[in-house]
Amino acid sequence: MPFNPELWFTEKYSDFCGFTFKVKEVLHTEYSKLQRLDILDTYEFGRIMLLDGFIMFTQRDEFVYHEMITHLPLFAHKKPEAVLIIGGGDGGSAREVSRHTYLKRIDDVEIDEIVPKNSIEYTPFVGEGFKRENVNLIIGDGIEYVKNKSNMYDVVIVDSTDPFGPAEGLFNSEFYSNVKNILRDGGIVVAQAENAYYDAKWMMRSVNNMRKAFGRDKVTIYQAAIPTYPSGSWAFSIAWKGDEHPKDSFDEKRFNELDLKFKYYNPEIHKAAFVLPNYVREILESD
Amino acid sequence: MPFNPELWFTEKYSDFCGFTFKVKEVLHTEYSKLQRLDILDTYEFGRIMLLDGFIMFTQRDEFVYHEMITHLPLFAHKKPEAVLIIGGGDGGSAREVSRHTYLKRIDDVEIDEIVPKNSIEYTPFVGEGFKRENVNLIIGDGIEYVKNKSNMYDVVIVDSTDPFGPAEGLFNSEFYSNVKNILRDGGIVVAQAENAYYDAKWMMRSVNNMRKAFGRDKVTIYQAAIPTYPSGSWAFSIAWKGDEHPKDSFDEKRFNELDLKFKYYNPEIHKAAFVLPNYVREILESD
Repeated sequence: MPFNPELWFTEKYSDFCGFTFKVKEVLHTEYSKLQRLDILDTYEFGRIMLLDGFIMFTQRDEFVYHEMITHLPLFAHKKPEAVLIIGGGDGGSAREVSRHTYLKRIDDVEIDEIVPKNSIEYTPFVGEGFKRENVNLIIGDGIEYVKNKSNMYDVVIVDSTDPFGPAEGLFNSEFYSNVKNILRDGGIVVAQAENAYYDAKWMMRSVNNMRKAFGRDKVTIYQAAIPTYPSGSWAFSIAWKGDEHPKDSFDEKRFNELDLKFKYYNPEIHKAAFVLPNYVREILESD
Repeated sequence: MPFNPELWFTEKYSDFCGFTFKVKEVLHTEYSKLQRLDILDTYEFGRIMLLDGFIMFTQRDEFVYHEMITHLPLFAHKKPEAVLIIGGGDGGSAREVSRHTYLKRIDDVEIDEIVPKNSIEYTPFVGEGFKRENVNLIIGDGIEYVKNKSNMYDVVIVDSTDPFGPAEGLFNSEFYSNVKNILRDGGIVVAQAENAYYDAKWMMRSVNNMRKAFGRDKVTIYQAAIPTYPSGSWAFSIAWKGDEHPKDSFDEKRFNELDLKFKYYNPEIHKAAFVLPNYVREILESD
């Protein structure tokens, strides 16, 4: 039963614009030492998780983000065996990575235990990621976790919140030099990198931190169309230790053998996601 | 001077969500027999034109829509000489088409004279399209204009408002059989076709009308990332009379000779725009 027939939530994209949607019910609110979490039930998007008032995912379109931050780097890698997810506390990235059943190790390091706890309870369509046998959830600080470790993972996925509060340290260059060390030869790291339209500064912070660690010619961005994220076009920064550009190293054989069903990702999207409009290309090249 | 420090405008994407932005000033409001027009000045997006309360374009991101509805079909055509724009009353499409200076004829048939009049006055960055010497503005009904004419144009661009009110007849199948007749051999038609996320029904109405006229294998959609349009991912339906898919018929030689500067469009985008996520592909193939 809706407790308020006209309850609307607005996420500001800047001081001057935002996205607004009607809320059926606020199902749960909880504070950790790090942040505030809300679970909303909505008319248009199903269940939504907010952290500190920002949309983390909606039930209706989370598949785009979670497919594109996981399957693209996994199929770009020649032979991944061990995957590290940093953040991703809702379980959506773990859910998608776990479908690559040939992997020997999947670790997810999430700093705030209230996120997986509530995701499992209130948004099991993503929280189920932590129920998979091949997923190892570690409650801890990803920034600390990657320090003083080397040659442990083939793919690192930085599935963070926005670049303030708990995730701020994930947008620093020291973090990426540790990520480079923790990657094996041929390793690939991807990170959610905000968007080129409202937050080009943050997108470039992520790109430039990767550039410092991996070298300018081993970093780029790719994009995906996520209706409930600011601008609708989301950027992922990606860096690689090998020689081949991840756009060109799609593993068609493994893709066909696994024969997974995707709602967004496909072999053509794998390449097209790297094709940037001129104004985004210019932002990327100007800095 | 802002007359109201907290004036916000909200465009509803459905009954349950929408896009909201802060308005500096309502510069102009006018009614024709067909519709209401508003020109807003905003903090985030510069000037915005509304027709019947819906965003037609914003100063900040109109370049995406206008480049993608014009240059893609023009460079996909082998040797365009005559172009017809139906609608496009703001002048943005005319502005972009007019940059193809080799064209022998550019006609823009707009039904409502208040649109070009106010665009020229209040939003000259698009309205300037009608100041170009090679553009011929005709005030008239595009649905009537295409009746009983044949072999007149190489590219037809249906730059309409949303599919209710004055533009409703542009989403009918009779209209597209007339468009097919007015096209010469090798001709191409594109139309703005709403979006796959909130308005798949309207997208498919446009696609299916084209299919009835051109045949199922001569129609598809392509997409562009437009931050201020619903979902941020906009669909254009496209149909062709020739044998070659417009994705593959990009004219690199003419593109290089013209050497135009674009903010969004480029040769890689030309192809990538046709690459659809699985869920959009399924909508397209299921009907």
